This record gives sequence, C-alpha cells and structure tokens, in this order.
Amino acid sequence: MHSVNFTAETSSDGVVERDFTVGEVTGALWSPASGAERAPLVLMGHGGGQHRKAPAMVGRARRIIDHCGFNVATIDAPGHGGRPRTAHDEKEIAEMLRARAAGEPEGPVVVRYNAHLAERALPEWLATLDALQRLPEIGAEGPVGYYGLNMGTAIGVPLVAVEPRITAAVFGLHWPDVLAEPASRITIPIEFDLQWDDEHIDRQAGLALFDAFASKEKTLHANSGSHKELPRFEADSAARFFARHLGRAATSSA
Amino acid sequence: MHSVNFTAETSSDGVVERDFTVGEVTGALWSPASGAERAPLVLMGHGGGQHRKAPAMVGRARRIIDHCGFNVATIDAPGHGGRPRTAHDEKEIAEMLRARAAGEPEGPVVVRYNAHLAERALPEWLATLDALQRLPEIGAEGPVGYYGLNMGTAIGVPLVAVEPRITAAVFGLHWPDVLAEPASRITIPIEFDLQWDDEHIDRQAGLALFDAFASKEKTLHANSGSHKELPRFEADSAARFFARHLGRAATSSA
Repeated sequence: MHSVNFTAETSSDGVVERDFTVGEVTGALWSPASGAERAPLVLMGHGGGQHRKAPAMVGRARRIIDHCGFNVATIDAPGHGGRPRTAHDEKEIAEMLRARAAGEPEGPVVVRYNAHLAERALPEWLATLDALQRLPEIGAEGPVGYYGLNMGTAIGVPLVAVEPRITAAVFGLHWPDVLAEPASRITIPIEFDLQWDDEHIDRQAGLALFDAFASKEKTLHANSGSHKELPRFEADSAARFFARHLGRAATSSA
Repeated sequence: MHSVNFTAETSSDGVVERDFTVGEVTGALWSPASGAERAPLVLMGHGGGQHRKAPAMVGRARRIIDHCGFNVATIDAPGHGGRPRTAHDEKEIAEMLRARAAGEPEGPVVVRYNAHLAERALPEWLATLDALQRLPEIGAEGPVGYYGLNMGTAIGVPLVAVEPRITAAVFGLHWPDVLAEPASRITIPIEFDLQWDDEHIDRQAGLALFDAFASKEKTLHANSGSHKELPRFEADSAARFFARHLGRAATSSA
C-alpha cells in the first residue's frame, strides 16, 4: 500500500500546488491556500500527449478551486509526463503519428491505444485515490468527482464504472467503440462535452457515447467548432456541475 | 406609433415589475430596483398556453436580473394571457386538445398553429421593442437578447431572423419543420435547449433544428428527461449566456 509522497510545493493567488508520487506514479494536488480540510476531491485525467500539469489541467484546477473550494488531483497517465514508455507505447505513438501525417483517420489507433492505457491506468488511479483519502486534509468521507476529456474520458469511463466513490463526472470528446459498454454501467450524474464539427470524431459517434450512459441525470454540451475548439466557458460549467453535485449544500434542482 | 403605457407596478426583493400595454398588446417589464438605466434588454417569449407572467417567465426574469442586472420584457402572444382569441385560435386549440386526448402526436397541429401565431406576433414584438427603446431608462443603444422555448422559439426564430437589434438568443424545445429555414439565416450566438427523451419532439428533429442555425457560436444543452423536465439550472445557464454576450465587459472567451 503506497502513501502520498509530496516532492514539491508552490503557492500563488490563493492556490497551493503540490507535486507528489504514489509508488511509481507522478501526480499533482491543488488546494485552496485558505485550507480545504475534508473538502470534496475532483480527480482530473489529462488528454493524450499531455501531462499532469498541462495548461488545461492547471486552468481547470484553478476554476474548481475558485468556484468550489475543492481539492483537485491529477496523475500522469502511463507513458506520459516523463513516465517511462514501453516498446508498445513507442509503436502505437509512431503508428498514430504516421496516420496523422498520411491524412488517415487517427480514430482507430487512438481508440485502441487509449483502451490499452486505460487498463494500465485504472489500478494506478485506485491506488492514488486510496492514498489521497488517507491524507488528513482530504479524508475518506468526502465526495469525489472525475473530470477528463479525450484520453481522460477513455481512462475515466472504465474507472468510474468500477469505482463507487466517484459520484459525479464530466466526460467528452471520445469515440463510443470501447466506452459504450462501461458507460452503460454508469448511473451517476454526467456532464458530457462534444464538438459539433469535430473533424476526428463523427457527430453520431459522439452522440452515441453520450446516449450510452445509464445516468438518470446527464447533460450534453455540444458546441460549434472543431475538435480543439472546446470553449473555455465549458471549464466554468464543469466547476458549477461539481459544485451542484459534490457541494455540501448541493440540491438536485440547483 | 404606439408608446409603452404602464398600467401597474409592484416591487419585491430588489426587482420592479411593471405591467404595460403597447397598443392592444399586454406585456410585463422587470428591472433591478437599484436602477438599470441603459442596461441591456432581454425579450422573453412564453410557451404555448402560458402568459407574460407565467411562473417560468417570472423565475427567468429574476435570474437574469440577479445575475446580470439587465431589463427583461415579455408580451402575451396573440390569443394568450387574456388577449382575445379568434375563431381560428379556438379551432386549432380544439384540434390540439382532441389530438392529445386521442393519444395522437400533437406535433403537426402545434407546428402549424405556432407558425400562424408567429406571423401575428412578429409585428407586435417589433412595435414593442421600438416602444421599449424609446423609454429613457432603456434607450436605443443597448444590446438586446431574446429568450424563448417551445412556442417562444416558434415565434423567436423568425423574429431574430429579421431583427438585427437582437444579438444573442436562447431557443429550444421545438420541431425544425417551419423553423429550419429562418434559423439558417441566423448568425448571432445561440444557446439551444433540448430534452434527450422528449416524448413529443423526436431527438433527430430537435438536433436538426440546432444544426440549422448558421451561427458560428452555438451551444446545444441536451438533458436527459421528458419534454417538461428541462432542469432549472438551464435558466441559470441562460442568464450566464446573456451576461457573456450582452454584458458590457463581455469577451468571447468569458
């Protein structure tokens, strides 16, 4: 059983950022400088090729802290953020780059490779959540959310399907091929982001993944624009979603 | 040229509500009690069978005032809110009630009747907007939004298609049959509400109306649940949408 080992700490504008390791896994934890004892925890999964402290992660963490006062944690996915790559990683990444350069669809490689990464990432997330909940400032009683798009959805959907401690999630921007089945076992409230003019993910495929969730409460946010043009106001919307569902004063009609 | 004639005024919790007439048209204007001189104006269209001060109208007006400090105006649609019904109104309403009682789809009657009401309502909205903008506390320079679902969309889409003073709009919950054409002439930012399990409006039909808007910036909010189960948090989202697009400090990335 691994514990959280803090390796660095910085603070700015009311947010404390701490790098940590849990065994071999590298992560980051953001908390309100004013203290967030026993506050809810949001786990965030980064996109493919990114890392635990990519600008999108830092920006979303700050929005959640500013809006909700929660704790926010990310970990580097296998083969990401300086973590060692296997020969299989190198082969799949080369294949994806080859397809992209050739103007071929990336989807088939990305779907297959992300499913492989999800299998490796799941036990890492579970061990990280166990370790974070043993920290006195987080604790095991508070609600937990998950927020991840792109590869963060490919890893997050199977994670949420097996982890009952996670009670609200924001997903999006992925194909349904591998994920529709675990999504059909998810019943917690979901917010789902989709780009209406996504050049990689067919519109009907994106809608099919949203449709697959068994959640009684689920909301689709589809914005005009290409795959990378997700509006920043969706990060604000996600923060409000977590405030509604994980906040101590949350109500179903809020 | 008709002016705004105020007929009643009440005030509660920081909101001033004034009933008015513009010619034969009855309306209501809500403003912050703290004063909203030259603040933006949001026009709201009510649903079928409702009226200018239906609970949804009052609730949405309060949210917009609390969140944005704007002015909000509604008018009773033709044949609604105590306004006289024509023989044609009576015939169509009877036909709709008959279809409902027989368990037949209401859509064909509602689409046809709403299109008829929109034709009658358009000149009334234009005269009302003219008159409201001649009020010293509103003025002709401020930005104008439109917010209407169900019949409020059936009237609002053709209105927005011809009225360049309206620069942001929230629509939703309607069939595309008559509205896709005027929607294809609309280029302003749009937020669009759809119920994923709508028992009256087929999912692909709802998506087709969202798709029809020519707007570069448009966002679909699709929530699980039946036609009448639109979550209340969508009214908060609409208020934030108007704050982003009509607010004095609005930026495209806000």
